[in-house]
Amino acid sequence: MSFDFTALLPEGTPAPANRWSGFPEFNFVGGHIDNATVPVDDLRAAMDRALAREGADIATYSLRSGPQGYRPLRDFVAEKLNRYAGIETTGDDILLTSGSLQAMDLVNTLLLEPGDTVIVEETNYGGTFSKLRAMGVKMVPVALDADGMRMDALETALNDLAAQGIRPKYIFTIATVHNPTGTILPLDRRHRMLELAKAHSVPIFEDECYSDIVWANERPPALRALDDSGMVIHIGTFSKTVGPALRVGYINADWPVLGRLVALKKDAGSPALEQMMLAEYGIDRFDAHVRHCNAVLEGKLDALIDAVNEHFGTTVQFAKPPGGIFLWMKLPEGVTTPRLAAVAGAQGVAVNPGPDWSLEGDADRWIRICFANPPIETIRAGVAKLATICQAEFGVPEISGNVRR
Amino acid sequence: MSFDFTALLPEGTPAPANRWSGFPEFNFVGGHIDNATVPVDDLRAAMDRALAREGADIATYSLRSGPQGYRPLRDFVAEKLNRYAGIETTGDDILLTSGSLQAMDLVNTLLLEPGDTVIVEETNYGGTFSKLRAMGVKMVPVALDADGMRMDALETALNDLAAQGIRPKYIFTIATVHNPTGTILPLDRRHRMLELAKAHSVPIFEDECYSDIVWANERPPALRALDDSGMVIHIGTFSKTVGPALRVGYINADWPVLGRLVALKKDAGSPALEQMMLAEYGIDRFDAHVRHCNAVLEGKLDALIDAVNEHFGTTVQFAKPPGGIFLWMKLPEGVTTPRLAAVAGAQGVAVNPGPDWSLEGDADRWIRICFANPPIETIRAGVAKLATICQAEFGVPEISGNVRR
Repeated sequence: MSFDFTALLPEGTPAPANRWSGFPEFNFVGGHIDNATVPVDDLRAAMDRALAREGADIATYSLRSGPQGYRPLRDFVAEKLNRYAGIETTGDDILLTSGSLQAMDLVNTLLLEPGDTVIVEETNYGGTFSKLRAMGVKMVPVALDADGMRMDALETALNDLAAQGIRPKYIFTIATVHNPTGTILPLDRRHRMLELAKAHSVPIFEDECYSDIVWANERPPALRALDDSGMVIHIGTFSKTVGPALRVGYINADWPVLGRLVALKKDAGSPALEQMMLAEYGIDRFDAHVRHCNAVLEGKLDALIDAVNEHFGTTVQFAKPPGGIFLWMKLPEGVTTPRLAAVAGAQGVAVNPGPDWSLEGDADRWIRICFANPPIETIRAGVAKLATICQAEFGVPEISGNVRR
Repeated sequence: MSFDFTALLPEGTPAPANRWSGFPEFNFVGGHIDNATVPVDDLRAAMDRALAREGADIATYSLRSGPQGYRPLRDFVAEKLNRYAGIETTGDDILLTSGSLQAMDLVNTLLLEPGDTVIVEETNYGGTFSKLRAMGVKMVPVALDADGMRMDALETALNDLAAQGIRPKYIFTIATVHNPTGTILPLDRRHRMLELAKAHSVPIFEDECYSDIVWANERPPALRALDDSGMVIHIGTFSKTVGPALRVGYINADWPVLGRLVALKKDAGSPALEQMMLAEYGIDRFDAHVRHCNAVLEGKLDALIDAVNEHFGTTVQFAKPPGGIFLWMKLPEGVTTPRLAAVAGAQGVAVNPGPDWSLEGDADRWIRICFANPPIETIRAGVAKLATICQAEFGVPEISGNVRR
């Protein structure tokens, strides 16, 4: 007879997951990138050189580099932060993590307790919300516009909290290539955010997972680059530039914070091979690779926008983002995107419904479309199918591809 | 001026870690393995073949295998569990993790709440204790003898708890090559443990991190192999056979448990390259490699024991373990090992003091010596230095290397 675990599980434990049955046919979720852009030959060569030289070091936890992670990759990250984000730092102040999700978890574990308050962009990475909710932390949302977080709204939020005697634990911002809106916060707003944060003694938690993916190949300095007080904690990843199956992210912060995060990281190290391969791949190849990816991804985005225009016409609203791997799009009145996502998902078209990504009042009109992974033909066919499904379910768009349905 | 984070930190947050300054000269801690045994050429070849064939798949989270991990490695683990531990399973019921520490964390997160009770071997992996303490879980220790957990003591513990109306959440056991004692639980005790566990409806959490490292190259079937009710959750790792810098562990359990652990694993996947390389390396090379490692490690253990006999003589007690990478050794009366470890550590000789590894009354007489990493000459020199330090600090051993000190 089968042993019954249910009485042993804490209250509210969900049922077992369904077994995974493969990616959907039209996969517009999940933050995957373009398989064709993975620089396989250069990565193979890098991995082989690194293993030949230092392969025997896998016999020791964390190679020969200690708990902050593989020193050559820390130096690479420091150089990348300098070149790309204007941050003056060294490998001494980098903590390599198992993806940027672990970076988020470590920062949250260090700073947050149940009942604490944080400030977040109102529309945000879904994981930001779910992690904070799971920790019992209150989120004060701040509105965005076409340039990212609104500084007037941030000021109001900080003043309101101060009036209640609440000091929020941090301002969380995806300032450069925001998820999901793709916005890049202009330099003047960055200075203003630092001013406000300083005036209220609230640190800034800056997540720059997508910040290398910018069509113009240039961007304003990171908030951390503009601050000299150590009040900004900066995290990033290689997931969106080299590959998300590699589990390597990083944290850059001053030692009073970083040294405590090192102590909290009790996983016996992040993956050795992925750290060795990326370090050996090197920043010059990385530079050229990122420029190539950006050209490819902007082409895919343009194809997506063409398909959306063709199949949804003027019924949808969106702005072409300056970078990133998704389009954040508002569907016409009458459409509720959680239902659209469910119905479309059942037919092989996967999109993220707005409420997972936004605390806005009309979040359920929005969807997030990740366009990096599917080939252009698949993007076109998927958008056409999504429009057909939307029309069948909600009656809109009425006209698609210049054909009344 | 530097931003002050201290007021934002939860009460009791420790100070920042010290910066890492390299491994100690005589490194008898940390569970590292022998650099010379890492099969670098075979691993390079495996990694290169896998990257050439499937490298582009790193563009998607978890490659093409979903949240349980890279399918070819799941199949390898299933085959390994079958050959080595007698467990009939398939890759469908394997969850690959980022090291076996994550496996422990997932199982603990699924089953435990503050105030819960678990049964543990009285002497145990230090991380077992620290993780359970951090979760606010009560540990009921069960004594060991030369054959591992004593079944009479387990029966008493289960009966005592039942008399108090307490159903423990699990019996945690490192049945095969116990950490730190190295004991292997005999088959009759395994059957008895299952009987007792079944009678009390308490699941077994079986950790087999070291179980491949056995001088005889054979071992009794795993508890999970002897159970057909799904009451055993089995975890293991490649850290001790291929390299701990690789972060790959695994869980094998029936779906009512495994499917819930999959849902709890929210790290966006375990490292891709390490999974690909190990799968491609393959079980036949793994077999030959493990036999080679076992011969090398037993040689190192014998050298360690010779050095201990030479320098500590009859003042210490230990049994030669049948496998593993450590010697668990009792120092003479008057020695307290936390102080010995501190004094020796300051002089470059790192050992684990007993109280981190044992709840026994005389735990502070024991030390754990990891012998896998240092070369034999270093083992000899380190033991000699440890004896000298011990003599200087505690006056014992009086005679060392046949020389009165």
